[in-house]
Amino acid sequence: MISLDPQQQSARDWFEGLRTRICAAFEAIEREADSDAAFTFTPWDRVDESAGPEGGGGGVQGLLRGRVFEKVGVNVSTVGGRFSPEFARSINGAGDDPRFFATGISLVAHMANPHVPAVHMNTRYLRTTKSWFGGGADLNPPLPQPQDTDDFHAAFRAACEAHGQVADYPKFKKWADDYFWIPHRNVHRGVGGIFYDHLESDFEPTFAFTRSVGEAFLDIFPAIVRRRMSMAASEADRAAMLAYRGRYAEFNLVYDRGTSFGLKTGGNVDAILMSLPPVATWA
Amino acid sequence: MISLDPQQQSARDWFEGLRTRICAAFEAIEREADSDAAFTFTPWDRVDESAGPEGGGGGVQGLLRGRVFEKVGVNVSTVGGRFSPEFARSINGAGDDPRFFATGISLVAHMANPHVPAVHMNTRYLRTTKSWFGGGADLNPPLPQPQDTDDFHAAFRAACEAHGQVADYPKFKKWADDYFWIPHRNVHRGVGGIFYDHLESDFEPTFAFTRSVGEAFLDIFPAIVRRRMSMAASEADRAAMLAYRGRYAEFNLVYDRGTSFGLKTGGNVDAILMSLPPVATWA
Repeated sequence: MISLDPQQQSARDWFEGLRTRICAAFEAIEREADSDAAFTFTPWDRVDESAGPEGGGGGVQGLLRGRVFEKVGVNVSTVGGRFSPEFARSINGAGDDPRFFATGISLVAHMANPHVPAVHMNTRYLRTTKSWFGGGADLNPPLPQPQDTDDFHAAFRAACEAHGQVADYPKFKKWADDYFWIPHRNVHRGVGGIFYDHLESDFEPTFAFTRSVGEAFLDIFPAIVRRRMSMAASEADRAAMLAYRGRYAEFNLVYDRGTSFGLKTGGNVDAILMSLPPVATWA
Repeated sequence: MISLDPQQQSARDWFEGLRTRICAAFEAIEREADSDAAFTFTPWDRVDESAGPEGGGGGVQGLLRGRVFEKVGVNVSTVGGRFSPEFARSINGAGDDPRFFATGISLVAHMANPHVPAVHMNTRYLRTTKSWFGGGADLNPPLPQPQDTDDFHAAFRAACEAHGQVADYPKFKKWADDYFWIPHRNVHRGVGGIFYDHLESDFEPTFAFTRSVGEAFLDIFPAIVRRRMSMAASEADRAAMLAYRGRYAEFNLVYDRGTSFGLKTGGNVDAILMSLPPVATWA
């Protein structure tokens, strides 16, 4: 097991606590739909024999397949080690010293009802010779509804504006628009949200902002789910959702940096690829 | 339209003729299954305004969705232009002159019955400051049967051995084993076949070998389909096929060079991604 300093430990504790609250909120929604679906939690260890005492750690993959949440994965992980030399050069502060520490939460929900948006949320704390928070959330409605999009954006705007000294909402919103883009399709993968990275100023204010991002997610996403989960959906609506998920899979496999980071740093493949949709189609 | 010299024209004519024969063979199988499913053919033009008179060309995307062939795409394309400078450096013979010409056929079949293997076949003629043939074929059975695997390998072994002066079967078989590998899963995407590239010796013998690869495919794959297409399949068999297809999509989107080549050279996105399965699942 890797040893943590107080900042690393408080970040990890926050991510794990947020995970527990999110899972409880999602299970409560399942019960409202007369489903007793519950998360299963699978721990995994990071194997990195070359990393020495600072290497190792692992995570817990949470997975629920229910009536409202067709498939939702909520992973927390806390890992340390050394980047490979070629990968280290591409990482902030790791060019001359490949050691790293990372703790974070990552969530992707694919919903049974095409009127309920899919969603992604991820926040993390990274340490190389530098240290920073990063993360984001974006909404992925197969059948977009302006009210959902507006409310999702408003929640993350409020989270940013409450931490204006470290969070720049217009910048973070544009970052999501630029990041969640599928160039070969010339479309966004969803309707955006926020994305931020390398928030390197003092630990406390950047950590406080990251906590607010988690709270904003926990506040707005269950509300959007409850608003849409009972809407009637046609076969055409479901077909549109499955095709939309095909594009989502394309984005994650071709462009997503988190997927690439995970596959290149000896992460747990099942946990990394839990973001992929339960079913997807290609015309 | 790009102008072709006699070698380019004979290669293109072969690929287009092979396409026509393959489509007829697959439609005949559909009719044996009391289906009148037929290919639809969609032409597309390559748009490359910067390439000058040698740029342009296009292709024809053939697609059939039938009773035996759940989704099969057969594309021919003949294109010319200039690689982007950074891409040119990675291509044989294009480092100092980014102009290229390519003509080829590409086929991927995803089958309705999980006992019938999916298959991929692709052969092409490339010209930069060098010129060469490349291609290959690999079998992708969700539920592998030794007889199918053995017969598939035997067909391509015979094609290679008939052209021993340019084709090295053990090398080309190993190349397929190495190429069609999913490192993050630690599995092959299928049971292999052959893969070859940069066959730069004289045009005639390498072209003759490439024609034999096409003939071998046309000989063996319909035979394997007929052998399996009426086998009973359970829900569990179908579920295994859909999960297998998820790994196939992972390979194509994360690792396949043809997909990357196409997306980076202004190819037709629908034609490039026709290789993706009609439906796939992730656990």
